Amino acid sequence: MTSHELADLNLDPGQPLQSQLYRQLVRWICVGRLAAGTKLPSSRRLAESLAISRNTVTQVLDQMKAEGFLTSYPGKGVFVSPKLPSYVEKPEGQDWQAQSNRCLPPLSDYGDLVQAFPGSRENEDLLIPFTPGLPDLNAFPFTIWNKLYRRHQSRLALAGYGQSQGYLPLRQALAEYLRNSRGLRCNAEQVIITNGAQEALNLCAQVTVNRGDRVYIENPGYRRARSAFLAVGAKLMPVSLADKHLDVDKLVKSAKKAKLLFITPTHQYPMGGVMPASERIKLLDWATQMGCWIIEDDYDSEFSFQNKPVAALQGMGEKTPVLYMGSFSKTLLPGLRLGYLVTPSSTVPAFAQAKEMLSGHSPLVTQAVVADFLNEGHFVRHLQKMRASYMQKWEHFCQLIRDTLPSPARLIASSTGMHLVISTPGHDDITLSKKLRSHGLGSTPLSLFFPNKVENTGLVLGFANTEHKQREECVKVLTKLLEK
Amino acid sequence: MTSHELADLNLDPGQPLQSQLYRQLVRWICVGRLAAGTKLPSSRRLAESLAISRNTVTQVLDQMKAEGFLTSYPGKGVFVSPKLPSYVEKPEGQDWQAQSNRCLPPLSDYGDLVQAFPGSRENEDLLIPFTPGLPDLNAFPFTIWNKLYRRHQSRLALAGYGQSQGYLPLRQALAEYLRNSRGLRCNAEQVIITNGAQEALNLCAQVTVNRGDRVYIENPGYRRARSAFLAVGAKLMPVSLADKHLDVDKLVKSAKKAKLLFITPTHQYPMGGVMPASERIKLLDWATQMGCWIIEDDYDSEFSFQNKPVAALQGMGEKTPVLYMGSFSKTLLPGLRLGYLVTPSSTVPAFAQAKEMLSGHSPLVTQAVVADFLNEGHFVRHLQKMRASYMQKWEHFCQLIRDTLPSPARLIASSTGMHLVISTPGHDDITLSKKLRSHGLGSTPLSLFFPNKVENTGLVLGFANTEHKQREECVKVLTKLLEK
Repeated sequence: MTSHELADLNLDPGQPLQSQLYRQLVRWICVGRLAAGTKLPSSRRLAESLAISRNTVTQVLDQMKAEGFLTSYPGKGVFVSPKLPSYVEKPEGQDWQAQSNRCLPPLSDYGDLVQAFPGSRENEDLLIPFTPGLPDLNAFPFTIWNKLYRRHQSRLALAGYGQSQGYLPLRQALAEYLRNSRGLRCNAEQVIITNGAQEALNLCAQVTVNRGDRVYIENPGYRRARSAFLAVGAKLMPVSLADKHLDVDKLVKSAKKAKLLFITPTHQYPMGGVMPASERIKLLDWATQMGCWIIEDDYDSEFSFQNKPVAALQGMGEKTPVLYMGSFSKTLLPGLRLGYLVTPSSTVPAFAQAKEMLSGHSPLVTQAVVADFLNEGHFVRHLQKMRASYMQKWEHFCQLIRDTLPSPARLIASSTGMHLVISTPGHDDITLSKKLRSHGLGSTPLSLFFPNKVENTGLVLGFANTEHKQREECVKVLTKLLEK
Repeated sequence: MTSHELADLNLDPGQPLQSQLYRQLVRWICVGRLAAGTKLPSSRRLAESLAISRNTVTQVLDQMKAEGFLTSYPGKGVFVSPKLPSYVEKPEGQDWQAQSNRCLPPLSDYGDLVQAFPGSRENEDLLIPFTPGLPDLNAFPFTIWNKLYRRHQSRLALAGYGQSQGYLPLRQALAEYLRNSRGLRCNAEQVIITNGAQEALNLCAQVTVNRGDRVYIENPGYRRARSAFLAVGAKLMPVSLADKHLDVDKLVKSAKKAKLLFITPTHQYPMGGVMPASERIKLLDWATQMGCWIIEDDYDSEFSFQNKPVAALQGMGEKTPVLYMGSFSKTLLPGLRLGYLVTPSSTVPAFAQAKEMLSGHSPLVTQAVVADFLNEGHFVRHLQKMRASYMQKWEHFCQLIRDTLPSPARLIASSTGMHLVISTPGHDDITLSKKLRSHGLGSTPLSLFFPNKVENTGLVLGFANTEHKQREECVKVLTKLLEK
């Protein structure tokens, strides 16, 4: 090895030295720059020349000897092995560096499609008040939760692999809760625990929709559902609302067969309507006759302020094509990232296997803690407390908006859930939302919920994670913005 | 309502009474069995007749009044509303019950495909000794882990929503670890935190493979990878091994273009070979020329007993089409369900958005704890300890097998990782594995790793989660079974 070559060994002191030296020497041997039989400088000289420790050099040389690149002759020194791997001997003259600027291979249709969707939330936007979907984080009973966690934190049975379908005690506790509180017809065998509602949604999309299949969605409706269906190549069929919930008659009149219908019947997202039971039965009839799957997203049904929430579609008939999904993100904490899916018994193997394929089991200790949280009554107690608290916040926020906001801005508020909608005719809601953001206030522009033509502008405001003063501040800022 | 009808109200005492009563009454009204204007019995009479509490009856009636099904006239009683929803008035005579036995709609190709794969592991099989893939659960530093956990358990910043790509401090710590220990060329922006390696694998499959694309896999090779590619409709192209690692020359000779190659270069799964650096460079050349993505599954590279592990493919060149995946299941605990993916910068938006679509963020507190675990040196210390411990176990197990097992059974053991392979010519390995199972000993039959023709029978045995006596017991039982 010439001193010129030695000088060319160029290590970046900010990067790990050992692997840099290893990579450079291997590459030089492979591209023929260090020919078979070349003698290397002593480890002492290499170390001095490179200004690195001799120990680092020795480790690299030892590794390369073990891999057959170098051979050491006692008393003579270290040489590039005379018998190199066959590839190196082919003098194709392909220099690695020259090739490294080629383009990467193309992505799949899925990859191209998802790349086109709007990016994920910015980190700083995740926690600001009025961001829709955030429960009251401060009110979470961390003390109870952490106590239950300590029970399970060192259990070896929860340290290994778990069943992809979900931890059985959680599935049992959840099935019981859903039967009692939401009128579901289900047992633990039909429950699949997922990484948040988003995974439940994606499981449904993947397991039921083929590229080109039609999917009915609510218009306006949940954006992430739209993206999940588009990503599997679905053809979206928006259905408009009647009285703030999906217009079932319009659906029934449209004779077009579809593979799937996505619906938020108990609290239409975002408009807030509750579909009455008679419409639900009509919808189930239609879906059963048409052979159309229904995804029932029951996302915040727990927070109904005046009546008990209408029973879920899933429980209204047996053998109906309903895939029921829910989330602990709103009833417990988004950070836990747990959701669930209840599917008809005969389809459980397909969904459980798809879950295995997509991500395997969900984290075990968290599942065990949630199971205890349900079984010991903390869940129902927490929900009762939150229902009362959210109702107060809702009443306060509604009153402020009604009293203050200049017309034609108008409140659209159903007596349920964690958000409300303000209709702002004549205002560009994306600009409005950005201006609110500059005051540290979150919101989602209503226009983003329309898949095609924007029929209404406004703001979706989450109030669950807000304080009294913040609500006053929000309405004050909003009023100023709308009066401009 | 006639007393005959009243008697027909049939509640199952084992099910929630309130929702049953609600459902039956709603259904009867909707199918016309209870006509508009029908008078209902008093709540007292209903309660007595059904042997349920009057409170339950009142709640159901109140709910149905709120929904418009019933109307109450003071002093007269409760009636089925004269003005019912339009659907109910249409006398189509469709009885809900009669329709409920229809078949469910078909699943998608994905749903049908995944349903055909072998089911998930049985619960009781997940923790038995010698099950491949289990690290030494007892040796995990739960005390340190739980201490770090307490630091983050009540942090509001980790209670809400997180970035789908992963918690930034973890991505930073991981990128540094991968640069230093595995020679990767990456920064935190290229890292995507996943729900276990399985989600990383599935992300790669979905984002790069279209239905009908060719995918090269190792033969024998990792079964879950095979399933993940089949599930997205790939055409599998098995490539045989040379010296227990993928035969790169065979791959180069096969002129067939493919979209993807899945490879375990640092510890071929299951045969254990380590691909030398010269072959790696040849492989990278080939992939770059052919425009073929490489998934480098670096699943237990940390446990190399004699040399340092060969540097990862990903770090050997810039702008190479390498998707690097790894897992904390083997270095920490499977129950945490955390894995990671490192992708070329230009493809990060597609992968991050696909992660958002598939399951959103991974659990936040766990990510924060792992970040601290890495940053404070616990990770590297734990790995050093485990490397020494696994090496002892490996030497002991190898020695026992060599000394005891009757030929032609033969040990195939590379000096790395958490498992070894025993070749058992002439024995049906599925039967052998079942017999071992009846002695409480886990294993995976080698034949299951061959995608088509079974070329070798044997057993894959994980030794990391075993004790001295268990290894002796295992070899004793195995010897008896093989001598039969």
